[in-house]
Amino acid sequence: MKTDLDGWMAERGYAALLVLGGAAHNPPMYYLANGATVTERTVLVQPRGGAPVLYVSAMERDEARRSGLEVRTALPRLTELRGDSDELTATARWLGELLVENGVRGGTVAAYGQADLGAGHALLTALAELHPQYNVVGEFSGGVLHRARLTKDAAEAKRIRAVGTKTMRVVAGTEAFLTRHRAKNGVLVKKDGAPLTVGDVKAHIRSLLQAEHIVDPEDGTIFAIGRDAGVPHSRGNDADVMALGRSIVYDIFPAEPGGGYYFDFTRTWCLGYAPPEVAAAYKDVMAAFKAVMAALKPGELCRTYQHLTCDILEARGHPTLRTDPRGVEGYVHSLAHGVGLEIHEAPSFSGVKTNDDRLEPGMVVTIEPGLYYPERGYGVRVEDCVWLNPATNKFEALGRYHKRLVLHGPNW
Amino acid sequence: MKTDLDGWMAERGYAALLVLGGAAHNPPMYYLANGATVTERTVLVQPRGGAPVLYVSAMERDEARRSGLEVRTALPRLTELRGDSDELTATARWLGELLVENGVRGGTVAAYGQADLGAGHALLTALAELHPQYNVVGEFSGGVLHRARLTKDAAEAKRIRAVGTKTMRVVAGTEAFLTRHRAKNGVLVKKDGAPLTVGDVKAHIRSLLQAEHIVDPEDGTIFAIGRDAGVPHSRGNDADVMALGRSIVYDIFPAEPGGGYYFDFTRTWCLGYAPPEVAAAYKDVMAAFKAVMAALKPGELCRTYQHLTCDILEARGHPTLRTDPRGVEGYVHSLAHGVGLEIHEAPSFSGVKTNDDRLEPGMVVTIEPGLYYPERGYGVRVEDCVWLNPATNKFEALGRYHKRLVLHGPNW
Repeated sequence: MKTDLDGWMAERGYAALLVLGGAAHNPPMYYLANGATVTERTVLVQPRGGAPVLYVSAMERDEARRSGLEVRTALPRLTELRGDSDELTATARWLGELLVENGVRGGTVAAYGQADLGAGHALLTALAELHPQYNVVGEFSGGVLHRARLTKDAAEAKRIRAVGTKTMRVVAGTEAFLTRHRAKNGVLVKKDGAPLTVGDVKAHIRSLLQAEHIVDPEDGTIFAIGRDAGVPHSRGNDADVMALGRSIVYDIFPAEPGGGYYFDFTRTWCLGYAPPEVAAAYKDVMAAFKAVMAALKPGELCRTYQHLTCDILEARGHPTLRTDPRGVEGYVHSLAHGVGLEIHEAPSFSGVKTNDDRLEPGMVVTIEPGLYYPERGYGVRVEDCVWLNPATNKFEALGRYHKRLVLHGPNW
Repeated sequence: MKTDLDGWMAERGYAALLVLGGAAHNPPMYYLANGATVTERTVLVQPRGGAPVLYVSAMERDEARRSGLEVRTALPRLTELRGDSDELTATARWLGELLVENGVRGGTVAAYGQADLGAGHALLTALAELHPQYNVVGEFSGGVLHRARLTKDAAEAKRIRAVGTKTMRVVAGTEAFLTRHRAKNGVLVKKDGAPLTVGDVKAHIRSLLQAEHIVDPEDGTIFAIGRDAGVPHSRGNDADVMALGRSIVYDIFPAEPGGGYYFDFTRTWCLGYAPPEVAAAYKDVMAAFKAVMAALKPGELCRTYQHLTCDILEARGHPTLRTDPRGVEGYVHSLAHGVGLEIHEAPSFSGVKTNDDRLEPGMVVTIEPGLYYPERGYGVRVEDCVWLNPATNKFEALGRYHKRLVLHGPNW
């Protein structure tokens, strides 16, 4: 959590954090600037033991103040520096000045912020060369800001839960949309008799998201039927018709507008009836889901649950990534991931033995076992999003929805 | 344009481009993977003179094929490598293998892709250390991919124009929404007699965007009235009422869903009437706008137009960034910027003498002079988005809308 940041900076001997870039789609800046709508060339300096300072364009001073942080404008100085040097050198000199202005005269400076990685590499290299008094570090993973973001405080969990509550209404609206259509010759049809398609359903999902004022930042909602449901990240094909008795994987991961917190949720539905093979796979996935939920324990290694899922699904006759790391049938992904300002973030639930992530109070993680048989025309996945409430040390689902596989309509 | 890429790679002696990350909000990957919906841990290797290869998770093989590129899956190998080394080392080793697999055995490799800059710095440093046969470069600006993206081909311009056409309908819908409200005691009111607010207008804009299936990725639409209109990037205050006779700056920059092309557009409106001072400022801005549009010439330095705008506005008695680089009154930003997969991209129209960007065929740029007087309670900006059509060598507006300052309603 954010309150842990100073302690971890001290533990690693960091003198300051230097965070670059606008807040949208830039979790480190969004996180530290409290979601203020600031754009490119924003710089945040967080000296150890001191308060963060937000440097913005004067044009954005109003938006920046919503961060609650001290706001300063410094771009005119960058323009001055550009008068007699190239943009890279000017920017590196300028960042050095901002550090000094905050009392950071040397020591280790850890840099963060979404940027082009080539540009970032050039900039941090130039910063280190121009200012040898700083040890400029870039953290690949497990950095202090990653560690802070790994656990969510009550305010963050509340925001994720709010997106979850809205998502539940979107899912309910999607179910209601499907179940009010009649079937004809085994496919849902619209009033004009034309088949209802994945494209139609997705358009309805978009209008439901809009009504709730949450967004799908990647335009990535998965609504995939039949064979496509058997390919975990297939988004679905707009032209596919809504046929009865085929598995539909509906995976929706909306976020607050403007780059805020995500929620992540999946259900598998069959319209009218489920073929026995799909029903059996669903039962297997639910067995894994329930076993994992029952076994979740603060402090446990995350990879334990990946192995538990593999144990259960292998025992029921399915291949897994453990039996065939290159397989595309059976259980072909990891069980879970963290959710926050990124849709996929730490902790990792990879089964590799070098993964030493553990469940910690405050984490928000998905639990999402699945089975995939594209050649047999189906896939199944069930996903909830849970928070390990630090106050109670218990796991709470951040959105609740029924887990019935089969939906029923007016004449189906 | 993309077709220039090989030539520029040859000119700089690059052996390959290495592009990392998912496509959403990652212009280099989106650009080279043709907008395929691929997510994290995607790698694209573009050897000079060869075809690009897209490495994705097997879960995303369907989506990846929509890129039209050769698609391979390589994550199982990364998992193997993680079995006996940390994530950073494993990733750097893996990237080296992908380069070799594409015949890139040495030489200069330029890296691109949105990532955390600290993580990117760590990764490129590790890549260079583990594979001394590569000269790994990160380009701060003006790199080969920046240069390619700087000019838009007909297909790209068509997409930006399509977003522009939809945006024009959103703007027309916004105007219609305002002008169908009645005024009471100098402010627009709803049917229930409550004042119409900026929040109400923004909710309507969101529904118009949704209906057009374009998005506001930053949740950043500016609809700012009065004093807020005098702060260029103020988004507007939801609680403000729609008062007659105050300037409204409406700056909207939607994009294709999922991280595609942007459009950028601004109008200033006064409801019912314009106070003489606002009308005079508007006239001054329009004089600058027209002078710039008439002067645009392929091959000319971009900074010329910033100085032309300063000349005109200073002659009319306004301070500018040239007369006061730290000023917040008068003309306080640069005239324009490029628009494409980022809302603000090259070329730069900064007036600094080190800015040697020039207008080139294929560029899409905004033209957006403005005047800002927050203490006097108003601001004015007018913005169109133009493409220098390489086929005709002429500038074309990618969206057309009237430039009348005053809007009229049923009783105002």
